[in-house]
Amino acid sequence: MKAPNLPELVLKYCQDKALFCNGDKVLVAVSGGADSLVLLDCLLAIKQNLGLELGVGHVDHDLRPESADDAANVKNHAENLGLAVLVTKVNIWEKAPTKATLEQAARGARYEALQQMARQFRATKIATGHSQTDQAETVLMRMIRGTGPLGLGGISPFRKDNVVRPLLSVSRDEIMAWATAKDLPIREDSTNQDTQYLRNRIRAELLPLLKTYNPQIESSLAELAEDFQDLGLWLLSQLPELKQNQDAKVVITKNQIDQCPPTLRPYMLAAAFHQASGAPLGLSRPHVLTLVDLATGPSSRQAHLPRRVIAQNVKGDLELFQDLEGPPPGSARRNSGPN
Amino acid sequence: MKAPNLPELVLKYCQDKALFCNGDKVLVAVSGGADSLVLLDCLLAIKQNLGLELGVGHVDHDLRPESADDAANVKNHAENLGLAVLVTKVNIWEKAPTKATLEQAARGARYEALQQMARQFRATKIATGHSQTDQAETVLMRMIRGTGPLGLGGISPFRKDNVVRPLLSVSRDEIMAWATAKDLPIREDSTNQDTQYLRNRIRAELLPLLKTYNPQIESSLAELAEDFQDLGLWLLSQLPELKQNQDAKVVITKNQIDQCPPTLRPYMLAAAFHQASGAPLGLSRPHVLTLVDLATGPSSRQAHLPRRVIAQNVKGDLELFQDLEGPPPGSARRNSGPN
Repeated sequence: MKAPNLPELVLKYCQDKALFCNGDKVLVAVSGGADSLVLLDCLLAIKQNLGLELGVGHVDHDLRPESADDAANVKNHAENLGLAVLVTKVNIWEKAPTKATLEQAARGARYEALQQMARQFRATKIATGHSQTDQAETVLMRMIRGTGPLGLGGISPFRKDNVVRPLLSVSRDEIMAWATAKDLPIREDSTNQDTQYLRNRIRAELLPLLKTYNPQIESSLAELAEDFQDLGLWLLSQLPELKQNQDAKVVITKNQIDQCPPTLRPYMLAAAFHQASGAPLGLSRPHVLTLVDLATGPSSRQAHLPRRVIAQNVKGDLELFQDLEGPPPGSARRNSGPN
Repeated sequence: MKAPNLPELVLKYCQDKALFCNGDKVLVAVSGGADSLVLLDCLLAIKQNLGLELGVGHVDHDLRPESADDAANVKNHAENLGLAVLVTKVNIWEKAPTKATLEQAARGARYEALQQMARQFRATKIATGHSQTDQAETVLMRMIRGTGPLGLGGISPFRKDNVVRPLLSVSRDEIMAWATAKDLPIREDSTNQDTQYLRNRIRAELLPLLKTYNPQIESSLAELAEDFQDLGLWLLSQLPELKQNQDAKVVITKNQIDQCPPTLRPYMLAAAFHQASGAPLGLSRPHVLTLVDLATGPSSRQAHLPRRVIAQNVKGDLELFQDLEGPPPGSARRNSGPN
């Protein structure tokens, strides 16, 4: 394929989505895979256009024998480029008691470590290498697991905690072509194939099949995600502001529930979950229905949601809070009766 | 699989979606395939619950040698059930000059013939046998071709022209199991495999693959479609009412365009297309973008859209109308400059 000029594409995307402000200090999250090395390469090429200062952060998950070499490789590459570089080693096993919870724990630990390095580097933004292909896979994964309109927004180009994704308009094929052309020192993560079963099947089987129907399927799905991001932000802007009470619980009053048009209630409830958990938008449909049921049903009932969020109906008001002291996540996905 | 009680499922769906009013006279569209025979069987079983009177309509497309036998089979079955039955033969080739336009012409002719039989029968509703599986296929087809949130609403359970789809909550597997258990005289349409290439690949390859990821994928996709139908109806209810001028053209004034939040503009434009064409909601994304471009760009430009709809910018107002006298559809999918 003819490789497009990626820095130009990335610059346009950053400008369209206003991902950066002039003067931003950016910690670029670099795992050492193609995505993150191409992200770094593109940001270096356009940093003057956007007025950015760059530094590199690497998280060593210490899950594989070669992880120390990966870290050394990133450090070496960044130093050759004359960039400040920080490496943080995290111990996932402490946070993930079972293999089933490993992926989520690794994700949580990675973002926590990146935020810590960002503070150390005095960064105003953290940039990650999520691509258009990741976006397409995420949309498909959400669709397969069951989701609503907010979930189809997929990976957001920016989050409240200053994480931005400048590569979302670039496909993995384009990334690989660019990495090869620029001879970037790629080291791929060999655990990818073990840890995320559904995403890997989507990558290996589903996307290739969909490409035979529509060669542009990745950008079609990414455009769909953009439409849903826009629509989701607008929908949320139409909802009443949700307050936190003196115990830091997010509260939706009975009055707010009654006044909300039934069509918008699921979105109001998903927004409350989002506010209580800090999780990305896109609660699964069954969980949203659980919340609708709880909000419109009798008082004193409780529901346990992902990310240790507990929702309870207190005299018609709905309260949501994260119970980080409670039982481990494995035992938490159930609805309990009155207690 | 254990066959669920389909009439019970269908009754619940009809009630939830308020598809019928007590006293409705319903023309059931029966091709003679499993879907339509099961539809008829279920409606017969629940007609007293809903207060319905039933009659049967069959459209003979006259495209295959066995089509007269199909018609006789439906007539015979309906008469055995003691139902009034109407058969209309249509000549598709007159309306479809090329094979590429055959499917759309057949669809148009079928609905036209059904409307005509409904008038003859003095029916207040027309029921068609679209299933949950059709719904899932439609959502996937729209997603593959590229669509926005309205398009993901898929097949609507009711249309403005009194067409209703009582089987949308029932999967094809459930339909086949029911048809077999009740020994219904099914005759499948052998042209199915020729006429709708993408839908047939979705049926043969994509849905089976998706089922290996999530055995409930059909109902997940159907639920997604329901969410989008609800959201679409609500979004449309938030938009200004669009007027038709003295030439029966749908007009969006410059003022309406300016006042509409940018996020909602695509929905306003899709609604105008819907009103001008009578087509189901779900204009493709490229066509919506063409309309956005036309509405917000310079005056005197024109765009040709599907279903022979022409959109033009007249001093900042946007006018949409169906040009049934214009050039045939094959030549109409282009944008022209000022004229």
